[in-house]
Amino acid sequence: MSKVITSRNDDYSQWYNDLVLKGGLADYSAVRGCMVIKPYGFGLWEKMRDVLDKMFKDTGHVNAYFPLFVPKSLFEAEEKNAEGFAKECAVVTHYRLKNDPNNKGKLIVDPEAKLEEELVVRPTSEAIIWNTYKGWIQSYRDLPILVNQWANVVRWEMRTRLFLRTAEFLWQEGHTAHASKEEAIIETKQMLEVYAQFAEEYMAMPVIKGVKTESERFAGAEDTYCIEALMQDGKALQAGTSHFLGQNFAKAFDVKFADKDNKLDYVWATSWGVSTRLIGGLVMTHSDDDGLVLPPRIAPLQVVIVPIYKGEEQKAAIDARVATIVTALKAKGISVKYDDSDNQRPGWKFAEYEMKGVPVRVALGARDLENGVAEVARRDTKEKQSMPLETLADSIESLLETIQQNLFNRAKAYRDAHITPVDTWDDFVATLETKTGFIAAHWDGTAATEAKIKELTKATIRCIPLDNKQETGTCILTGNPSIQRVLFAKAY
Amino acid sequence: MSKVITSRNDDYSQWYNDLVLKGGLADYSAVRGCMVIKPYGFGLWEKMRDVLDKMFKDTGHVNAYFPLFVPKSLFEAEEKNAEGFAKECAVVTHYRLKNDPNNKGKLIVDPEAKLEEELVVRPTSEAIIWNTYKGWIQSYRDLPILVNQWANVVRWEMRTRLFLRTAEFLWQEGHTAHASKEEAIIETKQMLEVYAQFAEEYMAMPVIKGVKTESERFAGAEDTYCIEALMQDGKALQAGTSHFLGQNFAKAFDVKFADKDNKLDYVWATSWGVSTRLIGGLVMTHSDDDGLVLPPRIAPLQVVIVPIYKGEEQKAAIDARVATIVTALKAKGISVKYDDSDNQRPGWKFAEYEMKGVPVRVALGARDLENGVAEVARRDTKEKQSMPLETLADSIESLLETIQQNLFNRAKAYRDAHITPVDTWDDFVATLETKTGFIAAHWDGTAATEAKIKELTKATIRCIPLDNKQETGTCILTGNPSIQRVLFAKAY
Repeated sequence: MSKVITSRNDDYSQWYNDLVLKGGLADYSAVRGCMVIKPYGFGLWEKMRDVLDKMFKDTGHVNAYFPLFVPKSLFEAEEKNAEGFAKECAVVTHYRLKNDPNNKGKLIVDPEAKLEEELVVRPTSEAIIWNTYKGWIQSYRDLPILVNQWANVVRWEMRTRLFLRTAEFLWQEGHTAHASKEEAIIETKQMLEVYAQFAEEYMAMPVIKGVKTESERFAGAEDTYCIEALMQDGKALQAGTSHFLGQNFAKAFDVKFADKDNKLDYVWATSWGVSTRLIGGLVMTHSDDDGLVLPPRIAPLQVVIVPIYKGEEQKAAIDARVATIVTALKAKGISVKYDDSDNQRPGWKFAEYEMKGVPVRVALGARDLENGVAEVARRDTKEKQSMPLETLADSIESLLETIQQNLFNRAKAYRDAHITPVDTWDDFVATLETKTGFIAAHWDGTAATEAKIKELTKATIRCIPLDNKQETGTCILTGNPSIQRVLFAKAY
Repeated sequence: MSKVITSRNDDYSQWYNDLVLKGGLADYSAVRGCMVIKPYGFGLWEKMRDVLDKMFKDTGHVNAYFPLFVPKSLFEAEEKNAEGFAKECAVVTHYRLKNDPNNKGKLIVDPEAKLEEELVVRPTSEAIIWNTYKGWIQSYRDLPILVNQWANVVRWEMRTRLFLRTAEFLWQEGHTAHASKEEAIIETKQMLEVYAQFAEEYMAMPVIKGVKTESERFAGAEDTYCIEALMQDGKALQAGTSHFLGQNFAKAFDVKFADKDNKLDYVWATSWGVSTRLIGGLVMTHSDDDGLVLPPRIAPLQVVIVPIYKGEEQKAAIDARVATIVTALKAKGISVKYDDSDNQRPGWKFAEYEMKGVPVRVALGARDLENGVAEVARRDTKEKQSMPLETLADSIESLLETIQQNLFNRAKAYRDAHITPVDTWDDFVATLETKTGFIAAHWDGTAATEAKIKELTKATIRCIPLDNKQETGTCILTGNPSIQRVLFAKAY
């Protein structure tokens, strides 16, 4: 096979790129830092999006759409938010190109078409949305507003990686408005639960729910809740965030509501998002040196059937039997492809579908047909077994569920084995370098210490887990008193 | 009611804006020419998008996603395409803002963060996509590529109108690559059929399928096929286009394939799109002076039930009966809302749902309950009838279908009555001014005549209908010989 994948041991980073490119998920583009999401990768995103969208709607949210551009004066209104994103935003300054008088066939920016006010391509939409909400909210009767948006956003990152960090990415951003602080906090936590449930039940990716330290907070938030996952190389990945924004944006955009007693107060806000970055996390949670491994519940293709035959007669007999199997699988809502293309040999197809992470592969030969069985291979464990054709659809249905569970259990066992409590600085540094993973260590609670640890080791505080055990201890760096352990890791 | 709508006769244009704003479809934004699509409007778009997406997939297409930005050098590669869009494109020139040293809290564009090459915000994606396809296509085995993208695009229009013409809009753009001219033309026509079927069967909006004249063609196309609808004010609306692009983009981006005999040739292309503009067309096809009128098959909410009661006891009895009706309707896949909110009177609610164009309204009072009936009102004709509760779900199901058909028939009768054959210039001008609608007239086939007619009357050739009758005649303007009538109209 021509599509050789670098092994994880040789070069983890190259292994990841090989998988994304050769697995058909994405491609580089002519635009610096922007990727093309290929049909197979987009099919995966569609499955993830549809599940999430249903979860959002089931919790009372509706979708809407806000402008791509944010006028500079709105962008700068919430100061911390502006400061956080100003360094990496794409700015539209002109609205026309014209022919280059000195170079036929070439275009130049028309200096006469300069915008009076520059437009920022949204890195996130709080500003444009809260400016809009101002017109929608007068009284408590207009609240809550529970809106979500599926959109593209742009952050001009200097170092980019396919899916994990791209200049443009796709995401959803929920933006809600509430009459009380309590209600907004409940919403913030509810959406964190939704994300955690999605990550674990659909992506089979175990996550730790927690809250960020002040230095790691979203720019403009009072509190940032997050789910953190662990990749196979022992680095953490922030997989989703849910922000309690307090009244910061309501104050910046002067959004007040009259309560039941006709008293005016600023509105309380949340925002929350997950992005195509999740696909990077998915790849690095389950895949192996032979290619992608996708959890059945979000795999674009769940089952592939490959015929093995000599001559048209054998082929016709297999075709007929497969047709009933395909019908039975589809009736169960299982996506299946019968790959009887004759331009590649079965071995090539096996490798190809392994590369693409299709959870279940069925091979059906002439002798199998006589014996009333098929060879069924699991992508997760590479095990093969012979299964009776009579009950094949049922067997595959339950096998898909088994694979889903196995992937989660396997990832969770790895993750749990890589949360290491550490009590001294030497152990901290050694664990970080050799064992990797999350390190549960005492920290004195200051931003200065956090920054120093990051400087010395590149490890950051990923989160303070929710319902964290309170225990007295001493900070691994400063020896100052601490009330709890927090989770450190190197991160994507 | 506070939400007064301007009548169509008083001011058609204001009537349209009132409907879009007060019906809750969209809102103006702080960005010139860009709109906010509100939840109700976005719910409508979601229904339309889901139907179209299924139709695309059923015809073998898959979704993908390409970058928002097009580097200027790619943008200018296909000369006609570049020329067509250069005058109205948003240009990103910088990638960073910085603090204004002279104005605390304000930001300015950082002159040191100027891009080496400007990026155009995509007005359409042929350039970036064909530059990508170059890497995907080597031989006939890689063809056809049948890809669609759901995305936002930006065209810096000088005069904008909600949905009909906005600087940013949402759309889908199909981009296919083929090994032969014939196959590409078949694809172009197939997608036109898909659009026509969608417009007529789901939007209940009759359309004429045709081909554009050279002057009205998409910039970079060999042929532009279109569907044209007629609005209630007698103006035409281009509702969807499907372009046969020939080898223009393949040549501009040097995309060749090896055929079975290993001979190299340029790839053949199509592109096709519909946008949120369709929502504007939908509004203007069916709505009336009381508000929106939405076809049941794409209405975000199909049925609303309003209780009419005095006291808790009556309310409880109605609630119980409504619960079974709601269950029965939902089991049929019908979307229904029971509006028992107590902050508004029934009359207010009736007007509100009329404004929002909900196809069927059910009112259920205490006496109705005793009599085993409900009052069912159709939004399209405003007729009310008493229906037995026992069979209400079935009756509503068939009523929704009746409404869908009636809307189409009504719009088609209006449209058909507004296609006027005209043989003299005086009649042409008079018909355009008084009767309005499409005018079927002879034209000498020259761009000069077409331009002159547009200059004199503002009417353009909307299309040359497919399978147009060939008949000799003389051009209404020049008297020169003509082989067929074409359709003129003033248009949005």
